[in-house]
Amino acid sequence: MDVLAIGNALVDVLATVTDEQMDELGIVKNSYELVDAETADALYEAMPPAVEISGGAAANTAVGVVSLGGTAGYIGRVRDDQLGAVFTHDLRATGVEFATPPVQDGPPTGRALTLITPDAHRTFRTYLGAANCLGPGDIDADLVAAAEVTYLEGYLWDPPDAKDAFRKAMRLAHDAGRRAALTLSDPFCVQNWGHEFAELLEQRQVDILFANEAELLTLYPGSLADAIDRIRDRCALAAITRSEHGSIVVSGDETHEVPADRVAEVVDTTGAGDLFAAGFLFGLTHGEPPRRCAELGSVCAAEVISHVGARPQHDLAELVASS
Amino acid sequence: MDVLAIGNALVDVLATVTDEQMDELGIVKNSYELVDAETADALYEAMPPAVEISGGAAANTAVGVVSLGGTAGYIGRVRDDQLGAVFTHDLRATGVEFATPPVQDGPPTGRALTLITPDAHRTFRTYLGAANCLGPGDIDADLVAAAEVTYLEGYLWDPPDAKDAFRKAMRLAHDAGRRAALTLSDPFCVQNWGHEFAELLEQRQVDILFANEAELLTLYPGSLADAIDRIRDRCALAAITRSEHGSIVVSGDETHEVPADRVAEVVDTTGAGDLFAAGFLFGLTHGEPPRRCAELGSVCAAEVISHVGARPQHDLAELVASS
Repeated sequence: MDVLAIGNALVDVLATVTDEQMDELGIVKNSYELVDAETADALYEAMPPAVEISGGAAANTAVGVVSLGGTAGYIGRVRDDQLGAVFTHDLRATGVEFATPPVQDGPPTGRALTLITPDAHRTFRTYLGAANCLGPGDIDADLVAAAEVTYLEGYLWDPPDAKDAFRKAMRLAHDAGRRAALTLSDPFCVQNWGHEFAELLEQRQVDILFANEAELLTLYPGSLADAIDRIRDRCALAAITRSEHGSIVVSGDETHEVPADRVAEVVDTTGAGDLFAAGFLFGLTHGEPPRRCAELGSVCAAEVISHVGARPQHDLAELVASS
Repeated sequence: MDVLAIGNALVDVLATVTDEQMDELGIVKNSYELVDAETADALYEAMPPAVEISGGAAANTAVGVVSLGGTAGYIGRVRDDQLGAVFTHDLRATGVEFATPPVQDGPPTGRALTLITPDAHRTFRTYLGAANCLGPGDIDADLVAAAEVTYLEGYLWDPPDAKDAFRKAMRLAHDAGRRAALTLSDPFCVQNWGHEFAELLEQRQVDILFANEAELLTLYPGSLADAIDRIRDRCALAAITRSEHGSIVVSGDETHEVPADRVAEVVDTTGAGDLFAAGFLFGLTHGEPPRRCAELGSVCAAEVISHVGARPQHDLAELVASS
């Protein structure tokens, strides 16, 4: 298996809103916040009509790897309810190996209320629900040992059990001679848990780091150049994404700047980072050099921001072949 | 209230499939079939990743009327489950008055598994679930009396209780000096229940009939001209839709042929008939002559076939103003 992804199993509830509606809802654009069931219900009630599409950042990455022709697995928690069935169906239908059994009780399947503004940016209010129940017991040692890269989503780094699950997954990966990848997921996550992410990096637990510029600078405040130097010493490979400015790959002494792929119209940026990681990890597990990995990431990110929804709608292998 | 719509409350589960996948699934294109829970589950498992969007033919029509600036209500059944909450949220968020309380037990909220082929046509396998539980007790006499037109969806004409609900709604509408509209919904419905639809027309229970050419010719086999003559004698107003060939409005001695609106790219024809009915009924309840009603129907139908999903994504009032 090329990539085993571990993260919050969520169904995205996507609605298009105007800037005026955002003001009425009292929500700051581009923000990410975890909310409880009550707050999620109240916001949902005030939201415009929506569309439900299976999501979850790391799950989107797994789908991207398979669409590129690779193999991927997923570990994440849903409940045995209708949204859990939707998540499970959609992930398996793409060809991702997803074997985590749904929980029989506790909170319902999690959902990410996603507000898309006319500038194609998105604002999340996430109710984690069952996703938050992931624990070390869910980390299948054979699956981790079978995967070239185990990819961990920073979003999940919150409940103590999930952290234990992450630590177990990293340890199992290294014991099996495999690599562990981490995405910082969101500046909000880094604000809350930056000291612990920094510790993981300090301890050389992370072989491959994904971060966008805002996340990296939240982790290591100061200049981008200084932050890159710090990350260079702490993990073997790092990919820093910079939206339309492309990405920077840091690999030992080398630094590669890779331009973003051109997009006719940016419709919804949800999933851009997830699909960049998919392209990058597919390249990495298929023997490509770092620069080419980032180029593959750019092709995949460009596809996913061209339409609503965070999973690819075109065959990525075909797109890459023609790129 | 302009329009009260009564029909099957369904969440559409939309997946894009190739012609080869249709063959593998053993499904004939453009067909409509009711399936039980087991068959629906088996098909869902074999289906590609999907998107969930609230639908239900008559509900789509109600949404269209509101988007045009009119007022609309809806009567239909969901269960108190996640898909029922999704349906209820989306309908209310558009401004449609929807007060039917969700049922507390029995089958889950119904869904329409919808396969979209590259030619933009759609094939339905519908599991009715809770939608099928509608009965005469759900028909609110005050709501019917308040609506200028009560619009009934032929799809619902199947369980005896639903038929009783329809008969009650038509009777209440006429008692209040209002009009009853019926859509034949699908040739499959007409094959099963054509003799009963013909009887309703014979008894002058239907004031306004919506049908596409295939449905009308299933009801009255023979030439289109003969079928139009028969319908002319049996209801005050009929609109026959003919896809890209536009529509024919039959109103007493008058017959109007109205061209279809041009569409840059037909993406998904789901909801074309529902939105034609929305435009037509909005015109009718706002004093427009029959030809103009059909023109409004064409504008609305053109919008909904330009994107995936059976509910308008643009403000229809604005579209009409600029048309």
